[in-house]
Amino acid sequence: MSTHRRWTVYLSGEIHSDWRERIETGVAQAGLAVDLTTPVTVHEDSDDCGVAIFGAEDSKFWHDRKGAQLNAIRTQTLIRDADVVVVRFGEKYKQWNAAFDAGYAAALGKPIITLHPPEHDHALKEVDAAANAVAREPEQVVQALAYVIGGATPKTKAEAAE
Amino acid sequence: MSTHRRWTVYLSGEIHSDWRERIETGVAQAGLAVDLTTPVTVHEDSDDCGVAIFGAEDSKFWHDRKGAQLNAIRTQTLIRDADVVVVRFGEKYKQWNAAFDAGYAAALGKPIITLHPPEHDHALKEVDAAANAVAREPEQVVQALAYVIGGATPKTKAEAAE
Amino acid sequence: MSTHRRWTVYLSGEIHSDWRERIETGVAQAGLAVDLTTPVTVHEDSDDCGVAIFGAEDSKFWHDRKGAQLNAIRTQTLIRDADVVVVRFGEKYKQWNAAFDAGYAAALGKPIITLHPPEHDHALKEVDAAANAVAREPEQVVQALAYVIGGATPKTKAEAAE
Amino acid sequence: MSTHRRWTVYLSGEIHSDWRERIETGVAQAGLAVDLTTPVTVHEDSDDCGVAIFGAEDSKFWHDRKGAQLNAIRTQTLIRDADVVVVRFGEKYKQWNAAFDAGYAAALGKPIITLHPPEHDHALKEVDAAANAVAREPEQVVQALAYVIGGATPKTKAEAAE
Amino acid sequence: MSTHRRWTVYLSGEIHSDWRERIETGVAQAGLAVDLTTPVTVHEDSDDCGVAIFGAEDSKFWHDRKGAQLNAIRTQTLIRDADVVVVRFGEKYKQWNAAFDAGYAAALGKPIITLHPPEHDHALKEVDAAANAVAREPEQVVQALAYVIGGATPKTKAEAAE
Amino acid sequence: MSTHRRWTVYLSGEIHSDWRERIETGVAQAGLAVDLTTPVTVHEDSDDCGVAIFGAEDSKFWHDRKGAQLNAIRTQTLIRDADVVVVRFGEKYKQWNAAFDAGYAAALGKPIITLHPPEHDHALKEVDAAANAVAREPEQVVQALAYVIGGATPKTKAEAAE
Amino acid sequence: MSTHRRWTVYLSGEIHSDWRERIETGVAQAGLAVDLTTPVTVHEDSDDCGVAIFGAEDSKFWHDRKGAQLNAIRTQTLIRDADVVVVRFGEKYKQWNAAFDAGYAAALGKPIITLHPPEHDHALKEVDAAANAVAREPEQVVQALAYVIGGATPKTKAEAAE
Amino acid sequence: MSTHRRWTVYLSGEIHSDWRERIETGVAQAGLAVDLTTPVTVHEDSDDCGVAIFGAEDSKFWHDRKGAQLNAIRTQTLIRDADVVVVRFGEKYKQWNAAFDAGYAAALGKPIITLHPPEHDHALKEVDAAANAVAREPEQVVQALAYVIGGATPKTKAEAAE
Repeated sequence: MSTHRRWTVYLSGEIHSDWRERIETGVAQAGLAVDLTTPVTVHEDSDDCGVAIFGAEDSKFWHDRKGAQLNAIRTQTLIRDADVVVVRFGEKYKQWNAAFDAGYAAALGKPIITLHPPEHDHALKEVDAAANAVAREPEQVVQALAYVIGGATPKTKAEAAE
Repeated sequence: MSTHRRWTVYLSGEIHSDWRERIETGVAQAGLAVDLTTPVTVHEDSDDCGVAIFGAEDSKFWHDRKGAQLNAIRTQTLIRDADVVVVRFGEKYKQWNAAFDAGYAAALGKPIITLHPPEHDHALKEVDAAANAVAREPEQVVQALAYVIGGATPKTKAEAAE
Repeated sequence: MSTHRRWTVYLSGEIHSDWRERIETGVAQAGLAVDLTTPVTVHEDSDDCGVAIFGAEDSKFWHDRKGAQLNAIRTQTLIRDADVVVVRFGEKYKQWNAAFDAGYAAALGKPIITLHPPEHDHALKEVDAAANAVAREPEQVVQALAYVIGGATPKTKAEAAE
Repeated sequence: MSTHRRWTVYLSGEIHSDWRERIETGVAQAGLAVDLTTPVTVHEDSDDCGVAIFGAEDSKFWHDRKGAQLNAIRTQTLIRDADVVVVRFGEKYKQWNAAFDAGYAAALGKPIITLHPPEHDHALKEVDAAANAVAREPEQVVQALAYVIGGATPKTKAEAAE
Repeated sequence: MSTHRRWTVYLSGEIHSDWRERIETGVAQAGLAVDLTTPVTVHEDSDDCGVAIFGAEDSKFWHDRKGAQLNAIRTQTLIRDADVVVVRFGEKYKQWNAAFDAGYAAALGKPIITLHPPEHDHALKEVDAAANAVAREPEQVVQALAYVIGGATPKTKAEAAE
Repeated sequence: MSTHRRWTVYLSGEIHSDWRERIETGVAQAGLAVDLTTPVTVHEDSDDCGVAIFGAEDSKFWHDRKGAQLNAIRTQTLIRDADVVVVRFGEKYKQWNAAFDAGYAAALGKPIITLHPPEHDHALKEVDAAANAVAREPEQVVQALAYVIGGATPKTKAEAAE
Repeated sequence: MSTHRRWTVYLSGEIHSDWRERIETGVAQAGLAVDLTTPVTVHEDSDDCGVAIFGAEDSKFWHDRKGAQLNAIRTQTLIRDADVVVVRFGEKYKQWNAAFDAGYAAALGKPIITLHPPEHDHALKEVDAAANAVAREPEQVVQALAYVIGGATPKTKAEAAE
Repeated sequence: MSTHRRWTVYLSGEIHSDWRERIETGVAQAGLAVDLTTPVTVHEDSDDCGVAIFGAEDSKFWHDRKGAQLNAIRTQTLIRDADVVVVRFGEKYKQWNAAFDAGYAAALGKPIITLHPPEHDHALKEVDAAANAVAREPEQVVQALAYVIGGATPKTKAEAAE
């Protein structure tokens, strides 16, 4: 069958570990027709972009608001654009952004893959219930994409590698 | 002007304090034409409803899943039904549910009022940026509803009370 | 909290057993604010309605088409109207109607509860994966509705009955 | 008239005969600007993909669920993407997937062509009633696409071949 | 099953015969829970309403435009509101309004019943192909509604009348 | 024909003249089944509601923002709810609110009636082009509603009054 | 400003004159970035395509139905795809197709340009009222596209040609 | 991460200053993957396009209407197409168009950046409340796009320039 389709996958959530890079590497190695999109992942830029561009605020609350609304242009556009949304919850911090993005994606009917350690399972049960899959490692996300896009299963790839 | 409209307000989030009751009391005292809707707020029922009805699971993960998907019938239906969604973040726990609901409501274009203490302001800046108002106390939510529905301002009400 | 909401539940699928009546009885006994809606469940009327009203056809194919399109006015309207769609697969027949209705409901974002014996589990795995719950007995559907609508759990109801 | 448009056609249903290949061959021979998309058609991969990637399950029910939800990412995305959905019902098996896909496509307003032998006509009458055409042979699907896309009729093509 | 639902049926098209009254009579006699809605059916009011209210126009073209846009408030609102749209083509005139309404209803996914004599069959084949049923007499529309709403078939009603 | 429908009409725009009262009076005198909805029309409350409820702001910009976002809960909900949106442009002020509401209503496909003096015709030509009617006096809006809802024309009513 | 956008314009209606060719020629001469799409315009193919591909029918009614539903795959897909829909009413025939397409396009919010002689003005007043422009000659449609896409006005082009 | 995405940005509003050119220059200098789209900005063409193409009108009102409806084909299509809508309010004129476009974009859920001097802040507070950012200078719009699209902050760019 002809398979010219490219898939767009948005990578939401944690910005303090290398999970995005591991997915990027895996997608490249597997040769998948995937465009990865992300929020701005430089923490201080994400915090300060609003005031850096539109002028300083005395109040931290409005300082934050200006940045958050600017970030929302990017994140909500890219989520709407995505075929699949991966939402990563790391081991630290509140990460309410990530859960917000998951809810946003769910209401739009986007397929979701969550990525988090088992210790978050109970706290994330409603989020996971809205997802198509729950991954523990970024490589599982790559395998899922390889299967969804090209029908490749881990076994098949192993054999192909021989 | 004729004002026969009833408003439906969904109260999402924290279940360990009396904030819903304070809103319910305030709405009743103000005589507002509001139907308040909520998730199931009995913690253990919300956790165990799935297996209690559809049968036990050996795995905690699927135990949780069965409950979460049953809860989702209620929560997502009521959020879709709501005119306004109030999302409360308390002082403890991850509360990813609440952030998920906020994202879900935002993608549906529902007006959101968040309700949380200032110490969460930075962590919730993206959620607040998707909201129409940020309240600190449940009574402010009632005042906001009184204004939105009937044009009453706190001052106006004070004068009216004289 | 105020709970004036009525729920509409569409009962799709098998017409050769008493599962709809058992749900109707259960809903009445539990006093749930539920309107149950159904397809026309008289088999021969459902088959022959088209030609009975609009005139006979020589060809069985178009005889069937005339009936099916008339039935579709009812079924698709009521599915669009429903808050929850219950889809029953009995032990016999192809029941492609039921699976079609499930797909239709899924694409509209309707919460689905499937109702079928375990021997169909594998064949129905894609349909079940689009559902919020899989029930084995009609009484479980009633319990699920009682929980979703009023927060009642089987245990709670048992205690209340003492 | 300028005719740069490519059409995307999703081929849903039976995986035990060569009907997809016959459509693929026909589309290629006719030189149609069509991208054909399909579910994963390797039966065991489609069954086991979930556990192969995300880990084994003790219960067959959840084993199936994990696979079905992963497959749903692909199938629902490709159906949403399609201009036309072809749904094939073969001579054996329940094939509830196929009927589910037809319902899903119908609710999205996608044009549907069903492909099945006459002995299924009565059982599929509601599905056929939601379709734009009922084909018996894959070559008829190709002819339909040739007509829809380029205005070619079987006669016209015969003449062109002289 | 509980059947509290009222159905709204919009009656579009010809204004020079008594077909609407015959449907109204039939619906009343059958005791159907139906609200019938219609365009304004007084021909000259429908033509002149715009200038009568908003002021005269020198040009017939804009005279017509003012009326047509006012009528559109009513017709498009009522079509959007309707559960079923009946479109009548009489024996005379262009009746492009009726065909326009049918297309409008079709794009909204509304079930359509057309009502016209056989001599229009070929000219209306695309419109009929978008309809769920083609009636020849208003009484057939009533029978179709009786079946769709309450499951009554002509035979059943005949027997009930004995 | 049965005509149980109530219509909801949102009155947007100018708050410094009695045009809403004139429409309200006219609707009551004509006995129309209309619910009129409006923004909060007390100017200072509309300006200060945000800070009155949620706390003062040092900056006028954020003072305004807090009020505007609270007002938006009301105005956008009521516009979404409306069957018809009337937008009044008075003789003074920028009235960008009114034009914003007109654009908002237009994108939602709501029928619009604008109400303004001829001197604004050229400046409002794009807004008027998105409207179904342009009225000069509030009484014309009432006549338009009387016609749209009940088919009454000014002449007809005059005759009826004899 | 960068203007890489291509526009898709669907040409609906009359098939017995050369209006499509005149638009095609004009668009080519003006070098507009336009893809023109059309129904199948060979009359007998459009009538007989269904039975030619899927088998003969004894009844003319179902013969027509099979063709009409096949044509609908093309026409409805291309209308949904279009940026602008041009609807031509010629001097003869009922042309209910054209009016149906106009209604279909209107409900989807597509900009419409009608093209017809003045003698149809009154009969088409509701259709014209849903259109953005009413043209008399195909060349006016080309000029409208040239303006809409590139800002060219007839005068401007004349000057440029000197 | 792969970033092949192009962004489309619609520039609505004032046509009497060089703000669009300054954004165009900035976007080019920053090498952003942006397609800028605009209304027709030649004032007299925008006023007279309708009559120039479709024929003169005696009445200025309908002269304006013909032009405005033709312009609407372009503006509403391009707003629907846009990822971001920038709305500029200059120092003079009513500029109701601009506010209408902002409302139109808001109802479609488009991210909005307003661009206006502080003296308009109070009059534009509802429009600004629907926007993601309020800019004072065109260069801030460019910086915002550079950040949203590529994560570049003004500081980063300064460093890069060294």
